[in-house]
Amino acid sequence: MIRIALDMMGGDNCPDCNLDGAFDALGSSDGFELIMVGPEETLRQKTADWSQELRSRISFVNATEVISLNEAPVQAIRKKKDSTITRGAELVKNKEADAFVSAGSSGALLAAGQLKVGRLPGVQRAPLAAFVPTKKGFCFFMDCGANVDAKPEWLCQFAQMGSIYMKEVMHSENPSVKLANLGLEEEKGNALTKEAHAMLKEMPDVNYQGFVEFRDVVYGEADVVVADAFTGNAIIKTLEGTAGVLMGMIKDVLKSSILTKLAAAVIIKPLRAKIKSFDASEHGGAVLLGLRGPVIKCHGNASRKEIRNALLQARDYISSGVGEKIAAAIADSTGKETSVPQHISVD
Amino acid sequence: MIRIALDMMGGDNCPDCNLDGAFDALGSSDGFELIMVGPEETLRQKTADWSQELRSRISFVNATEVISLNEAPVQAIRKKKDSTITRGAELVKNKEADAFVSAGSSGALLAAGQLKVGRLPGVQRAPLAAFVPTKKGFCFFMDCGANVDAKPEWLCQFAQMGSIYMKEVMHSENPSVKLANLGLEEEKGNALTKEAHAMLKEMPDVNYQGFVEFRDVVYGEADVVVADAFTGNAIIKTLEGTAGVLMGMIKDVLKSSILTKLAAAVIIKPLRAKIKSFDASEHGGAVLLGLRGPVIKCHGNASRKEIRNALLQARDYISSGVGEKIAAAIADSTGKETSVPQHISVD
Repeated sequence: MIRIALDMMGGDNCPDCNLDGAFDALGSSDGFELIMVGPEETLRQKTADWSQELRSRISFVNATEVISLNEAPVQAIRKKKDSTITRGAELVKNKEADAFVSAGSSGALLAAGQLKVGRLPGVQRAPLAAFVPTKKGFCFFMDCGANVDAKPEWLCQFAQMGSIYMKEVMHSENPSVKLANLGLEEEKGNALTKEAHAMLKEMPDVNYQGFVEFRDVVYGEADVVVADAFTGNAIIKTLEGTAGVLMGMIKDVLKSSILTKLAAAVIIKPLRAKIKSFDASEHGGAVLLGLRGPVIKCHGNASRKEIRNALLQARDYISSGVGEKIAAAIADSTGKETSVPQHISVD
Repeated sequence: MIRIALDMMGGDNCPDCNLDGAFDALGSSDGFELIMVGPEETLRQKTADWSQELRSRISFVNATEVISLNEAPVQAIRKKKDSTITRGAELVKNKEADAFVSAGSSGALLAAGQLKVGRLPGVQRAPLAAFVPTKKGFCFFMDCGANVDAKPEWLCQFAQMGSIYMKEVMHSENPSVKLANLGLEEEKGNALTKEAHAMLKEMPDVNYQGFVEFRDVVYGEADVVVADAFTGNAIIKTLEGTAGVLMGMIKDVLKSSILTKLAAAVIIKPLRAKIKSFDASEHGGAVLLGLRGPVIKCHGNASRKEIRNALLQARDYISSGVGEKIAAAIADSTGKETSVPQHISVD
């Protein structure tokens, strides 16, 4: 049985939102068990009225500390040994859980992933890979912010791992991969992009289609988009910020007079439906790719639905065997021996 | 009298849109003369019915070639000696015009700015600086894409030049300057950002306020925002792309049924007014800062209004004396002799 650990104290609306998301995920799929990481007594009380069936699928790992957003990540992971993030990552490391999902501090979660769970043999860096909304649906985008000052060979591995994820978990047949750049011409780009471009063209297992202009990422011009973490973070945060500001402006207009309020009553439902298609959290959270076990990051303000979807995503990650396939592909291309995640002892 | 050269064959809707924009600018300000660069005969015909007063303020420089968007910029500038962009930049170089405005090929315009007009003494790189819409109005943002693989000292000069522009042209009293980054903490950022951050803190003539997170650029958290050209291009193009996709979605919703069309009739006017506040082309085009004379880039799909505003911006650039102030400040901080633009012979 697949065992997924959930950080019950991560995110703005914890633990209630996390409990609700867990409830929904358990109810909609019987393919996994859930380990709730957090204050055990409180969590036991809050789940006391859940059905016998659901309760039989949850267990608790007590964790009394929480890493706050303004703590230095690496120090926090080392110092707060009883924090939900440290405990959750250790569960994966010790094979007591197959995956860990958290809406807590990004930095701490990245650090816990790299330091506690650890990378697969041959993986140079584990990128944070997220579903980014586009006009056509979504693209799988990495690195969203995990590894600054990237080397071209890191970007090549990102492309490789992202392709495998899209194939195995999202059932995309031959996902196109593009490199985000400030133009399409060969001579455009910074030194990193130019070098990575030349290397990606030579990769046999990646359907590399060249550059995608920054503006066209959101128009859905590729299935997998690769960028260094600094640029990647700039793209996804600007996308989120712009969408937030524009939606706020539209809300202001709709609330501005009696007439516009009447108009709002008419358009709010189709508008919500349309906007929903521009919300990639439908597909889950951001995954740290290339670790010995998946670590999934939800937004700090994750909704009940996002928590639910991230748990189902973790289930799909494990059941699809994508971790083993990434391990094998990286081993193949780096010449290191294949090491299937579940048989490795960590640290 | 201030003399501004306009590329009549740049942009998607040339020359008519350029003529309309020129007409509006000349009509709304008598503080400048216009040099129309393009096919002289056609332009003479098309302005034949303009008033005697307006016609007395325009002159023509014949240029028979146009640099297309897919030509390699540097080669195009060198080869197409009779192109509008080459001719326009040469007018500034030869002091026959004080400024050059174009909606043509960005790459060719950047190349013409650097190669023909040339940088002020001590200026290491000329960034493309644009007005970026924010929730609070706009910020002055650079580098939007001119100089990849930046060095920290370039970013410091960008901050310096951007501050002076905001003070002199936009009348901002003590503009705050921030460096775009993936977090606010000192230890966050790539090597370039960390180095530039340390240097910016020591600059006496810049009101440096530290990092701004990528997401908060669009929320208007700084007056001047500095980034390297690769990241900067990622930010502004993602902003434009996201706004384009979302506005398209809203239009689709408003057109989707009879009821939503009725609702649209009510909200379209206040919505347009609100969206207009999220359109920084109100303030003009993007400026190549630090050249011996201003070169201003409009969007390829620039409207009549954007052309008009860019011409008025060029006028304000010259009348404010911002070029001389930038030259003096850079000379001060680099120890090079002050060289006021109008007295320099170029190349």
